[in-house]
Amino acid sequence: MVKFLPFAVAALIAALPVSAVAECGGLRGTGDLGLVIERADGAVQVVDTTRRRALCTVTGLGDLSHASLVFSRDGRFAYVFGRDGGLSKVDVLTGTLVKRVTQAGNAIGGAISQDGRLVAVSNYEPGGVRVFDAATLEMLADIPAIAADGSRGKVVGLVDAPGLGFVYALYDAGEIWVAEMGKDATAPKLTKFTGIGRLPYDGMVTPDGRYYAAALFGEDGVALLDLWNLDKGVRRILDGYGKGEQPLPVYKMPHLGGWSTAGRLAFVPAVGRHEVLVVDQKTWEEVGRVAVYAQPVFTTARPDGRQVWVNFAHPHNDTVQVIDVPTRTVVQTLKPGPAVLHIEFSPRGEHAWVSVRDSDEVQVYDTRSFDKLASLPARKPSGIFFTARANRVGY
Amino acid sequence: MVKFLPFAVAALIAALPVSAVAECGGLRGTGDLGLVIERADGAVQVVDTTRRRALCTVTGLGDLSHASLVFSRDGRFAYVFGRDGGLSKVDVLTGTLVKRVTQAGNAIGGAISQDGRLVAVSNYEPGGVRVFDAATLEMLADIPAIAADGSRGKVVGLVDAPGLGFVYALYDAGEIWVAEMGKDATAPKLTKFTGIGRLPYDGMVTPDGRYYAAALFGEDGVALLDLWNLDKGVRRILDGYGKGEQPLPVYKMPHLGGWSTAGRLAFVPAVGRHEVLVVDQKTWEEVGRVAVYAQPVFTTARPDGRQVWVNFAHPHNDTVQVIDVPTRTVVQTLKPGPAVLHIEFSPRGEHAWVSVRDSDEVQVYDTRSFDKLASLPARKPSGIFFTARANRVGY
Repeated sequence: MVKFLPFAVAALIAALPVSAVAECGGLRGTGDLGLVIERADGAVQVVDTTRRRALCTVTGLGDLSHASLVFSRDGRFAYVFGRDGGLSKVDVLTGTLVKRVTQAGNAIGGAISQDGRLVAVSNYEPGGVRVFDAATLEMLADIPAIAADGSRGKVVGLVDAPGLGFVYALYDAGEIWVAEMGKDATAPKLTKFTGIGRLPYDGMVTPDGRYYAAALFGEDGVALLDLWNLDKGVRRILDGYGKGEQPLPVYKMPHLGGWSTAGRLAFVPAVGRHEVLVVDQKTWEEVGRVAVYAQPVFTTARPDGRQVWVNFAHPHNDTVQVIDVPTRTVVQTLKPGPAVLHIEFSPRGEHAWVSVRDSDEVQVYDTRSFDKLASLPARKPSGIFFTARANRVGY
Repeated sequence: MVKFLPFAVAALIAALPVSAVAECGGLRGTGDLGLVIERADGAVQVVDTTRRRALCTVTGLGDLSHASLVFSRDGRFAYVFGRDGGLSKVDVLTGTLVKRVTQAGNAIGGAISQDGRLVAVSNYEPGGVRVFDAATLEMLADIPAIAADGSRGKVVGLVDAPGLGFVYALYDAGEIWVAEMGKDATAPKLTKFTGIGRLPYDGMVTPDGRYYAAALFGEDGVALLDLWNLDKGVRRILDGYGKGEQPLPVYKMPHLGGWSTAGRLAFVPAVGRHEVLVVDQKTWEEVGRVAVYAQPVFTTARPDGRQVWVNFAHPHNDTVQVIDVPTRTVVQTLKPGPAVLHIEFSPRGEHAWVSVRDSDEVQVYDTRSFDKLASLPARKPSGIFFTARANRVGY
């Protein structure tokens, strides 16, 4: 459910052995492929999760700091959302850049529709959402984020809600919009929720596609929208979650994510605390806290929901901790190395792939024994994305 | 979660137009592919779920009545478990039969390990489980089902439990076995639970991989094993579920399946009643019933858990009903035609594919509007399996 990568200072490009090999292009299944973002190089590396190796590198994708991507429903193509407004379509199978359009001046993530026909991008400048034909990257709809007060601002937290359309938040104005994409994608139907709270800075959808949650930077709490009951409007949950009351300096605003399916619990990084909050997804109330090593950034649930892996803010970002969900205790502390930016599980959860930016590697762990199985060279890796995302809700 | 197809009388092979075309073999993603079992012909049809069409047909798979299959983790290969003990490895991408072994005299389904290295088959004759190398189909382990009383009998309900191994039930003796496959697959470690109830005839694992449930033919109720806490042993749930108390003649024993992730509910076909039971997966108690058209056979949850689709036993097997999960009411009744055998959802739930055996077609429905989008010719189709299963727990 992790949608965005942490903000981070630009890294120096060091003189490193090139990790690229050239094993892309042959007839093969795409179910065990993935992409690793090499942020400093504007490149993505294609990886094989069965053999645990890099296959090839695709370059020329522009500024990939804070980049994310989604996959086509056949798993062959990735749509990479660059910070510079670039939208790149990469052929994962052949390792080639199919097309790249600069669709805005400054952008932050995107989503693909449930049927795979549409790709939407969330833009800061000009503020709004633009929707593209997934096959051609032709722009089909341009939805400026003009708030109720007439101002235009940044869009964040864009997701696809199954059977409904794209959902996102207006950062400056504090609104949540639902854009229903009917048969005519050039004419989305907009439903707007205003006054949802100050400065929503991130959003996510629960794995069942039902709830959209937007974290607020400007006040305590999280705004929650029941996408199956839009009439009920947005409500506030988790008062005390937000920025207002933190007892420690906040090094980094944590992202939403890591919603466990073990029982009905969500694991949410606390802001400015060395804790992970445990939230009951039925009542949306906090039901517990787990003490962790430092300020958590991402919480990522293993696909079976039995473990939640946590990474941390600088200067403790060399560490990963594993929470055992049934007992709500930390059962393992790993030290992958400097600047752990992202964790991605293999689709059935046997392995965790961890990007370690400042040691230029991606590490693969066995999630049962916690043995390190492999280390793959990668240049300043950040996000790791496996094709199984194509088949899940909320991307 | 549906593992097995209904028993049914052998169908006459009618003189029909051949549905095979030949579009397999090119470079393409495998994420939107699937297989349809053409039971009367010993064939599988490769289908493209994006374009909603058949690509090619693979023949020579033997007796495919009651057949099921699993996919390799890259989505390229299918392992088809035939009734005649045949284990066939099909290359979905090229549309070819890679290898076929006759590994037993009479078999019923199988599973693939979490890491994709092992394929296990559940055998009636000789009773037991055989484990094969997924790459070569070489037999690595042969585990005869010799019960505590020394008798050897049929194995049913074989699943893979993530991080643990294969789990299955001994029909005749009433036992549940866990076979842990360590680094040496030739020496599985067996854990046996005896006296779990009379005649377990089907088994399933919950989507989170935690619970194994075996339905009992010989008495009321379901045997439940918490795979995260094997020490606690097997307990009985849903007394009154089983065969003992049915008020109507039972036309067909329903299968376990269709576990919804909306909240924490499971939807279970009642035996001999025109009802679907609603079960709380935390307490494993029945919390409601939904009246339906006839005796349910399969309940299949849409991937987002908002709907459960139900098909029915003869003579009402021309009908499908859709239960809306939040309201627990039937919201749609469809009449696809004679002998609806199986329902498979597209991975993100926008479409439902329905096999209609006696009209020799597979129908595709929009799950929001319930419009019929397509009808594909297929000869006596039974099971439909999409490659996204490779990335899910419990297969």
